[in-house]
Amino acid sequence: MSEHIAACIAVGELEDFIHRVLLRCGTDEASADAVTRALVTASRMGTDSHGLRLLPHYVQALKGGRINGRPTLAFTQRLAATGYLDADDGFGHLAGYRAIEHAIDMAETAGIGAVAVGNSSHFGAAGCYALAAARRGYIGLSLCNADALVSLHQGQTPFHGTNPIAFAAPVPDSPPYLLDMATSSIPWNRVKQYRAIDRTLPPNVVVDAHGELTTDPQQAASLLPLGGADFGFKGAGLAGMVEVLSATLTGMIHGFRMLPMTGEDMSTPRGVGHFFLVMHPGAFSDRETYERSMQVYLEDLRAQPALEGRQVLAPGDREWRCQARRDAEGIPLDTANLAAYRQLAETLELAPPMLV
Amino acid sequence: MSEHIAACIAVGELEDFIHRVLLRCGTDEASADAVTRALVTASRMGTDSHGLRLLPHYVQALKGGRINGRPTLAFTQRLAATGYLDADDGFGHLAGYRAIEHAIDMAETAGIGAVAVGNSSHFGAAGCYALAAARRGYIGLSLCNADALVSLHQGQTPFHGTNPIAFAAPVPDSPPYLLDMATSSIPWNRVKQYRAIDRTLPPNVVVDAHGELTTDPQQAASLLPLGGADFGFKGAGLAGMVEVLSATLTGMIHGFRMLPMTGEDMSTPRGVGHFFLVMHPGAFSDRETYERSMQVYLEDLRAQPALEGRQVLAPGDREWRCQARRDAEGIPLDTANLAAYRQLAETLELAPPMLV
Repeated sequence: MSEHIAACIAVGELEDFIHRVLLRCGTDEASADAVTRALVTASRMGTDSHGLRLLPHYVQALKGGRINGRPTLAFTQRLAATGYLDADDGFGHLAGYRAIEHAIDMAETAGIGAVAVGNSSHFGAAGCYALAAARRGYIGLSLCNADALVSLHQGQTPFHGTNPIAFAAPVPDSPPYLLDMATSSIPWNRVKQYRAIDRTLPPNVVVDAHGELTTDPQQAASLLPLGGADFGFKGAGLAGMVEVLSATLTGMIHGFRMLPMTGEDMSTPRGVGHFFLVMHPGAFSDRETYERSMQVYLEDLRAQPALEGRQVLAPGDREWRCQARRDAEGIPLDTANLAAYRQLAETLELAPPMLV
Repeated sequence: MSEHIAACIAVGELEDFIHRVLLRCGTDEASADAVTRALVTASRMGTDSHGLRLLPHYVQALKGGRINGRPTLAFTQRLAATGYLDADDGFGHLAGYRAIEHAIDMAETAGIGAVAVGNSSHFGAAGCYALAAARRGYIGLSLCNADALVSLHQGQTPFHGTNPIAFAAPVPDSPPYLLDMATSSIPWNRVKQYRAIDRTLPPNVVVDAHGELTTDPQQAASLLPLGGADFGFKGAGLAGMVEVLSATLTGMIHGFRMLPMTGEDMSTPRGVGHFFLVMHPGAFSDRETYERSMQVYLEDLRAQPALEGRQVLAPGDREWRCQARRDAEGIPLDTANLAAYRQLAETLELAPPMLV
């Protein structure tokens, strides 16, 4: 899938450019900070689809009015460990980081804290917010609904979004354990990429317009839930769990009724919902017990025999390696992304990003 | 997979027999009640592998001393919404129902409550405890680790247990939404069943002793995580999340180091860990909002077009249908289960169960 790498951009320069673009589009500082942080976090870890590639889309959504760049977030703490954050149609990234902070505050006193977010928008990579908790020493869970792209088990047409589950846990003297997964096998982006290069998809990940399995990206009309045609009831059930927690707790529309992220309407807010949960690792036994157990578990995991030429990794290991490489060498931009970034600079009358 | 059905047993009679067997083996009333409740709940829903079939195994574990039939459970509430339950090597079912009660108490005041359980044992179907919360009007999550049966992604040999995730949510005027899934595609029981009848397994669910894909149940040495050879990093990551929450929070051994459930040693406690989370559906917005949203979501879901000859179901729908049928007609016993139950009655000098 490697497209031609046209240039590299240093992490600091990417941050600076994204931030300038957002402010120029009229966002407040807090929104620009949060979106920049989330996009750069994702791209450093290698997930450009949820990182730097999103910037032109967000600019469109800001200009169209779908996303409110100067929102007034309102947090209502309902009980000692739960609350609701109204995102005022602002960026999901701002809502996500704020919600995690509220959840941490509650977890600090109650052991656990959960925040449901409503009237929000796309928040980039779910992992960013779980990770924000883990970086502060807490266990974090981050869920989000999305517009319909994934079939139900034995269904013909898209119903759930790719409804991601992200889970992060702190590890002493190491980067966190970090799982960040869609509840489909592949993202819709992959279908579009494979269409562009006319490459065959793996079996059992998409269906055509009649709900029949296909590996032809041109025929793909819906993603299958994780587990494919035989065991997709599991992926669909997990997507449902994400939907229930992201939408129904706060009365948001569920994904099937949501405007498509990439649709033509860039003026109507989409009403995305998120759900965040934070736990203090010492709130059940004590932190030392947790840390010792976590180390034993990860040592055992990484010592498992792998298939020939492969390697057994803990969730996050691949991302931290990529992050170390990209922090040192810069983040690669393919021709399409480079062109998009130059176009942004030109349209917004900003200095283009410096490349390495 | 239908073996010969030798007889049917009424739900009340099954309850009575399981209860009598357990008491005769020296358990206290609370343990007998909890195990009976969990096994009968699972069998009514059609999951006999986690229901009535487990009774002979539990009798062995009681007699051997692995499970303490008269435990002194100790709950330590650490903070306003979190606590630790030491199960004293008793039945996981008793610990599970107790933990859910403690979590409900905390959710009632704090909006959410989480209980990690240590020094426990097999708890049957994870769904029982999530369901217990949903029956009381709360959202419930139930997780459990288990001995190594499932490979890591790109691993050669078993590492995680089938580490289940169960999630239940109340639905007004209807049975709850209920997802209860292992994080592997199939359970190890299915390998054993297919071995017995020499039937080919579906592709991409097991590997042989070298970690290579096979569909031959005789060659199967490890289950693959949900997602199979290509996307098993997702199933393995979910299993890891379950492991972290079930084991590391309380310093329990993780599944790879755990004695096998069906091993020869029936005297050493296994140190199983569970994790339970309960949320008040009105703790984010209000209960009416939640209930209305849940109804809209499930109506939309069930109205989706299905593949020809198939049906789109919400998690739990299949189980509630089976439960209605079994409540009316009795629970079928195959020849093996019937023989095992008669043997139990004889060995323990109890009246055998009445059949219909």
